[in-house]
Order: sequence, then C-alpha cells, then structure tokens
Amino acid sequence: MHTSDTLLEKVNEAIRTINLNRSPAELYSPIVYTLNLGGKRIRPVLVLLNCEIFGGDLNSAVNPAIALEVFHNFTLLHDDIMDNAPLRRGKETVYKKWNANVAILSGDTMFALAYKHLIKTDKAILNDILDIFTTAAIEVCEGQQYDMNFETRKDVSIDEYMEMIRLKTAVLIAASMKTGAVIGRANLKDVENIYKFGECVGIAFQLQDDLLDVYGDQEKFGKKIGGDIVSNKKTFLYIKSLQDAKGADKNILQKYFSSADFEPQEKIVAVKKVYDNIGVRETTVELINQYYARALDCYSLISLSEEKKTPLKKYTDRMMQRDF
Amino acid sequence: MHTSDTLLEKVNEAIRTINLNRSPAELYSPIVYTLNLGGKRIRPVLVLLNCEIFGGDLNSAVNPAIALEVFHNFTLLHDDIMDNAPLRRGKETVYKKWNANVAILSGDTMFALAYKHLIKTDKAILNDILDIFTTAAIEVCEGQQYDMNFETRKDVSIDEYMEMIRLKTAVLIAASMKTGAVIGRANLKDVENIYKFGECVGIAFQLQDDLLDVYGDQEKFGKKIGGDIVSNKKTFLYIKSLQDAKGADKNILQKYFSSADFEPQEKIVAVKKVYDNIGVRETTVELINQYYARALDCYSLISLSEEKKTPLKKYTDRMMQRDF
Repeated sequence: MHTSDTLLEKVNEAIRTINLNRSPAELYSPIVYTLNLGGKRIRPVLVLLNCEIFGGDLNSAVNPAIALEVFHNFTLLHDDIMDNAPLRRGKETVYKKWNANVAILSGDTMFALAYKHLIKTDKAILNDILDIFTTAAIEVCEGQQYDMNFETRKDVSIDEYMEMIRLKTAVLIAASMKTGAVIGRANLKDVENIYKFGECVGIAFQLQDDLLDVYGDQEKFGKKIGGDIVSNKKTFLYIKSLQDAKGADKNILQKYFSSADFEPQEKIVAVKKVYDNIGVRETTVELINQYYARALDCYSLISLSEEKKTPLKKYTDRMMQRDF
Repeated sequence: MHTSDTLLEKVNEAIRTINLNRSPAELYSPIVYTLNLGGKRIRPVLVLLNCEIFGGDLNSAVNPAIALEVFHNFTLLHDDIMDNAPLRRGKETVYKKWNANVAILSGDTMFALAYKHLIKTDKAILNDILDIFTTAAIEVCEGQQYDMNFETRKDVSIDEYMEMIRLKTAVLIAASMKTGAVIGRANLKDVENIYKFGECVGIAFQLQDDLLDVYGDQEKFGKKIGGDIVSNKKTFLYIKSLQDAKGADKNILQKYFSSADFEPQEKIVAVKKVYDNIGVRETTVELINQYYARALDCYSLISLSEEKKTPLKKYTDRMMQRDF
C-alpha cells in the first residue's frame, strides 16, 4: 500500500506526461498553465487510493484519475469566468491572464481531454466508469447553475444550499472514490457505500471551506479571508445567520449583501461580527461533524478489514484538517 | 433503405425524446431552446445514413447520432459567445437571449449530454465510437482557436486557412460518417475511405459556405449576405483575393478589413467589387469542385455496390446544393 503522498507524486508524474505539446499554442498554453498551478489533486488521489484498498492495479487507475483532475480543472477555468475571479491558487486565472474566449475554448478542450484519458479505461468496466463520470459532470454543471441562481436570490433555504453543494462539490469527490472502487473491482454494495461516504465527505469538506473563508488562517487556507462575504456568496454561514438573526443583526446582513459596492474590509468586519453574535461558527462546526460522522457510518459498512481501509480514512481525515 | 428525409424525421423524433425536463430550469431551458432551433441535422443524418448503407441496425445508431448533433449545437453555443453573434437561424443566440454565463454553462452541460448518449453505444464498438468522437471534439476546438487567431492576423495563408476549416468543420462531418460506418460494421478500409470522403465533403461544404456568404440568395442561405465581410472573417475569398489583388484593389481590401467601424453596406459593396474584379467567385467554385471530385474519388473506393451506396452520394449532392 502506497502512502497518499506517494500517490500524489504518481498523479503529478502522470499529469506531467500528458502530451500538450500540440498546436495551436494559444489553445494549449492555458491548459499547461492551469494543470501546472498545482493544487491538492484530491480527486485523482482518491481514485488511486480507492483502487488500491480494494486490491486493484494502480496502473489501470491512472488514466481515469487524470480524467477526474483535468475535468475538475476545466470546471475551475469556466467557473472563474462566471465568478469574475482574478486569482486562483495565488496566480492569475486564465480568463484574466488571457481572455474569456481563450478560457472558454481551453476549458472545452480540457473537457474533451478528460474523456480522452477516461476512454483508456479497461474495456470490462469502461461503461460503468463513463457513466459515473458523465453523470457527475452533468450534476456539477447543475450545481454551478444553482450557485449562480443563488447570487440574485434573497430566499435561499438551507436545504437548497445543501443540495447545491452536494451537486457542485460532493458528487465529484464521490465519483472519484467510486471510480477507484470500480477499478479495484469492489462489490456493488461497497461501491454504493464508497459513493455515499464520498458524498458526505464532500459536503463536510465544502461546509468547512465556507467556514475557513471567514475563520481560517489565510496562510494555510491559501485564499484571501472574507472572499465569500465580499462577493455576496450565499454560504451556509450567511443563510443560517440570516435565518437566526433578529433586529439590527438581520438588517446588517441584508444591507451588506444587497450590493457589491461596500468597502471590503468594513464589510467583512461587520458581517463577521453578526456571525459571531449568532454563533454560526459553532453551528457550522457541528454540521461538519454531523456530516463527517455520517460519512464514517458509510465507511464502517465497507466490507474490507480495518487495516485495509484505514488509508482511506486517514486521507479523508487529512482533507478535513486541510493537512496537505 | 430509408430516404434522408425519413432519417431526418427519425433524428428529430429522437431529439424530441431527450429528457431535458430537469432542474435547474435556468440550465436546461437554453438547451431545449437551442435543440428546438432546428437546422439541417446533417451530422446525425449522416450517422444514420452511413449505418444503413453498410447494413447496420438504425436503432443502434440513434444515440450516437444524437450525440453528434448535441455536440455540434454545443459548439455553436460557445462559438456565438466568442464571435459576439446575436442571431442564429434567425433567432437570438443563447448568450444574447440569456447571458454569456448561461451560454457557457448550458454549453458545458450539452457536451456532457452528448457523451451521455454516446456511451449508450453497443459495447463491442464503444471504444472506437468514443475515440472517433473525442478526437473530433478536440480537433474542432483547435479549428475554432485557429479561426480566432486569424481574426487578428494579416498574413493567413491559404494552406493555413484550409487546415483551419478542415479542423473546424470537416472533421465533424467526417466523424459523423465514420461513426455510422463503424456501427454498420464496415471493414477498416471502407471506414477509412468514408472518413476521407467526409473530410473532403466537409471542406467543400465550408468553402461553399464562404461563397454563399457573398454570392448566395439570402432567402435560401438563411443568413444575412456579407456577414463574413462585415466581421472581417478571413475566408478563402478574402485570402485568395488579397493574394491576387494589386494596386487599388489590394488597398481597398486592406483598408476595409483593418477595422470593424465601416458602414456595413458600403463595405460589402466595395469588397464584393474587388472580389468580382479578381474573379474569386470562379476560383472558389473551381476549388469546391476539386474537393468534391476528390471526395467522389474516395466514394468510388467504397466496396459497396453502386446501388447500396447511392443514397450517400445523393445526400452529399444535396448538401452541396443546399437542397434541404
């Protein structure tokens, strides 16, 4: 059994060998740039990890793993256009560094490239792997659309929010795990539990992302603190606080989320103060723990020995602690 | 053997049965709108037609056929953003009717939907069909990037232009034919010739599109005459004329293609006059005929009886005459 760091190296090595030395350069340079931005490579590592705990051949999991990572990076590329995001992992986004047209078309090409790797999967399970991937791809698009819809809506419910992050974030984590399990020839029941495990981990992971945006350590989190507040993102913290807030607190939240024109630092301080008053930090931590506990219930049902499946839990623990 | 009109009906019926009654409506409405805009459905008809002449089962070709049409429509959706095109088939483009973000994300979803249909292909040939499709998808993106590059270049050669339209237009026509032939279990040699046939037909078809933009009948062509001239598109007519023009004619071409600010009608009249002086209409017709003759050379190598393969030639004849 390899450590997750060794698997990460394997993923990075495989990404370096993708042949992107093609013409036109205007199309492929942004793809090289994007894939070289790094990142934690959570999805491909999860493919390899799940393949390995079920006793699968790692080499047969490398192409599907790359497919998941290239797809994920494609979604970031297009999301950054839609969100007008200038920075990603501390560097200029493709749409800023080049332009929106380049970002659209390089993204489209990455989507096709993802399939180019995916179709190298062993024929015996190709159908399943394609189905898992394509279903997840459609759901990720649905999640992104809900997220965009929420930007202009004032009445987003917690249920709607949870469904949005399930689609936008959790299904791809779940699909990565499931892909690995199928390649490792896990039985149907285990594949199902692995997916549910991944889905709950994904939801907990996204809720934690929301939390770190407000209460994280900028150095460790790698993003500017308060970004969601500045851009009026309807996160769990906002929706829950708005629901629980009364009087002046409610007015402050509504006022600051009604426009994008406020001075950022002033806005962050004011909104964070309301969050503190409401105690939404603790509520969010509780919800994260609930989802991670639910994830571990699914994990406990996986029919592998504790020893065999421990590496998976170790890795999701690291995900939850952002310990990469 | 069905007529191509019957095959078109089959395609349209299949498109009507795609389940797009999903949430969020903001994502799926533009997809329904796009697929209902109609069009000639050339690519899916070519899939069915090629399947049938080789004796394949039409029902097994329907899903791949839909995949090709949905993919083609996805490329139009994204191209319209990049080209700032307000109209498509006489109706507002998605990016105009909704906005660019919606067009990006609905397009992405269509790309995934195309694969959703493609992966329903018979397992025995799934790998081949996926490979044909994915290779074509990447090449179409490359062609679109070249087309965008050409917008700001003044030294595009005829060879570069021919390669661009091969990638942007011809490979998808060729891939559609090849897909049908593979489903019809054509032998390798025939599959190869079908692809080359489709490639030459596709190039001739695009050259004719360039020609009709200037010399077509607006009613029959379905687009505004002179659109390529107004938007400074580096078509074969422009590149060839610029190459052959001397003195005043050359100056006129360079002047009018140096900016997008000219009064459209004045620009069309002036550029068309140069084209007439140069005689580029005749040169283009000659080149179209050359490519269609080359296509028919490939056609003649296909190892089916003349009777069996005639429906294919009848259809490509209709394509060349825009007789739909």
